[in-house]
Amino acid sequence: MQIVELIRKKRDGHSLSTAEIDWLIDQYAKENIPDYQMSAWLMAVYWRGMDARETSDLTLAMARSGEELHVRDTISPVIDKHSTGGVGDKVTLAVAPLVAACGVAVGKMTGRGLGHTGGTLDKLESVRGFRSALTRDEFMRILTRHHIVLAGQSGDLAPADGKMYALRDVTGTVESIPLIAASIMSKKLAIGASHLLLDVKVGSGAFMKSVEQARELAQTMVNIGRLAGLHTVAAITSMEQPLGRAIGNALEMAEAIAILRGDGPQDVSALCYHEAAELLVMTGIAQNFAEAEGVLSKQFIQELQSLSWPK
Amino acid sequence: MQIVELIRKKRDGHSLSTAEIDWLIDQYAKENIPDYQMSAWLMAVYWRGMDARETSDLTLAMARSGEELHVRDTISPVIDKHSTGGVGDKVTLAVAPLVAACGVAVGKMTGRGLGHTGGTLDKLESVRGFRSALTRDEFMRILTRHHIVLAGQSGDLAPADGKMYALRDVTGTVESIPLIAASIMSKKLAIGASHLLLDVKVGSGAFMKSVEQARELAQTMVNIGRLAGLHTVAAITSMEQPLGRAIGNALEMAEAIAILRGDGPQDVSALCYHEAAELLVMTGIAQNFAEAEGVLSKQFIQELQSLSWPK
Repeated sequence: MQIVELIRKKRDGHSLSTAEIDWLIDQYAKENIPDYQMSAWLMAVYWRGMDARETSDLTLAMARSGEELHVRDTISPVIDKHSTGGVGDKVTLAVAPLVAACGVAVGKMTGRGLGHTGGTLDKLESVRGFRSALTRDEFMRILTRHHIVLAGQSGDLAPADGKMYALRDVTGTVESIPLIAASIMSKKLAIGASHLLLDVKVGSGAFMKSVEQARELAQTMVNIGRLAGLHTVAAITSMEQPLGRAIGNALEMAEAIAILRGDGPQDVSALCYHEAAELLVMTGIAQNFAEAEGVLSKQFIQELQSLSWPK
Repeated sequence: MQIVELIRKKRDGHSLSTAEIDWLIDQYAKENIPDYQMSAWLMAVYWRGMDARETSDLTLAMARSGEELHVRDTISPVIDKHSTGGVGDKVTLAVAPLVAACGVAVGKMTGRGLGHTGGTLDKLESVRGFRSALTRDEFMRILTRHHIVLAGQSGDLAPADGKMYALRDVTGTVESIPLIAASIMSKKLAIGASHLLLDVKVGSGAFMKSVEQARELAQTMVNIGRLAGLHTVAAITSMEQPLGRAIGNALEMAEAIAILRGDGPQDVSALCYHEAAELLVMTGIAQNFAEAEGVLSKQFIQELQSLSWPK
C-alpha cells in the first residue's frame, strides 16, 4: 500500500478498507508514515468524514497499537465512564464510589484538562499524596482488592491515538466527530471494561455546541462500543452552565465529597444519582431506575456510616 | 500569527489576508512552519479553494521567496512561454527561435518531465554538449547578446514553491487549480518577462481533462499575471492525441528542427505558427494575426538561409 493513495482515496470521498486502516495505523505507530502525510489524511477525514465501519476499524487499530488490559477478564461486571468535558464536572469523583459501594467494580484511567474543561486526574491530584501513575500490576491489584481504581492514563495505552491526537492538536483537525469518537473509544477498548457509560456534554461550555452534534458523537461512540462487544450507553447532558457551585481542582474534590454526604448542590447531585442508577441498571444490579434508586439510598447510608470523611 | 489559526481559517472556508499569506510563505521558507502543518493547510486549500486575491498573494509571496531576475528591466519586450504539459509537445523548441528571429527576446527557464509528459529541458539535453545549468550572469549575458535563452530552472528561483511542490507531491494535494496556478506563475514572476503566453493543454493526455478545468486554470493564471503587471495570454489547446509524430527527447528535437525548416507535421507546425503569431501581436511587432503571419514567413526564409542545420 502507498500512503499517498490512501490520502487521495479519502480526499476523493471514498471509504478505506479495514486492511487499509490497519496498515495506516500500524505504519504510523511504527513511524514509517511521516506526520506530514498523516496530517493531510486527517484533514481529508475532517472534510469527508468516515462511515461507521471505518470509524470502528480506526478505533480498533488504535486500541491494538499498545498495551491492552482486558480488565473484564479479571473482574466482571467492571464499568468505565467518560465525560466529554465540561466546567465543574466532578461527576466521576462521586459516581465511581457510589456504584463501587453497590458492588459494581470501577476500573478507569482518567485524563487531564482539555481546553477550558477540567480533568478528573488534575482534581484527584489536588489530594495531598495522591499518586496517579500506576503500573499495570498496581492497577489490576487495586481493582481486584478494592473494586475501584482511578488512575492516570498509561502512555502505553493506545499510543497511536496519543501520537495522532498531538498531531491533530496542531493541524486544525481536532473537531471531527469520527476522530473524536475513535480517540476516546480506543482508550476504552484498550482498558477493556464490560460496560461503559458516556456522558456527552452539550452547550456553550462544552465542545459540542448543539444537540445534533452531541447526538452524532454519542451515536458514533455507542456504535463503536457495540461493534467491539463493549456494552455502551450514552447520556447527553447540558453544559449551558457549570455543574454545581465549585470550579477548581481542590474545590471540586470537596464538592464531590459533599455530594456523597448528601450535602451537594441539587443539580450535580441529581446528575450523579442518575448516572449511578444508569450503571446499576446496565450491569443488572437493579432491574430498573426505581430499584436502582432504592439500592443507592440503602447503600449510601451504610457507606456513610462506615466512613470517616476528611474535613 | 499562529499557523494552526490559519489552517482552521482555511478549513472553515474563509479567505486568508495578504499579511497572513505573506507570513505563511515566509515562515515556511524559513523552516519555522513544519511540513505537517503546511500539508494540513494544503489539504484545506484543496478542499476550500482560494479566491483570486488569495491566489495572487500566494503567487507573489512564493515569487519573492528567492532570487528574482527582472529580465524585462534589461531587455523589453522579452517573452516567456509555458505549456502545462502534453505528449510530443515540442512547441517551445520551435516557437522560441521563431519569435527571437522576429526581434522578440525570449528568456525562459524550463522544466523537466512531469508525470507522463516530457520536459523541454530533457529534450534540450539530448543535444550532445548542451549545458542547461546557467548562472544568473550567464543567463542575462546570453539573453542580451543572442535575445534567446532556454535554461534549466535555478533552484534559487521561488524556492518556497519548490519546497511546497515536493510536499504536495506526497500528500495528495497536487490537483488543486489555485495551487497549480500559483506554482507555475510564481516562477514566471520571479523571472520577470514582459509578456507571457500560456498553453493550457486539455484532454486525455493532459492534466486537465475537461475544457472547464482548463479554462479555470487558464483564467486563474491570467488573473495572477494581470494583477502582477505581467501581460499574460492563455491558449487552451487539445491534448487528445500526441502533437506531431515524434515522442522522445532526441526525436522531438529533430522534429522541432523539421518544423523550423517547414518540414514538420501539419498539426504541430500549425500550433507553433499560431503561438508565434500570438506572441508577435502581444508584443506589438505585428498589429494582427495576418500581419504576424507575414512577418513570420519573411523572417522564416531569411533565417533558414543564414543557418546551417545539424543533420
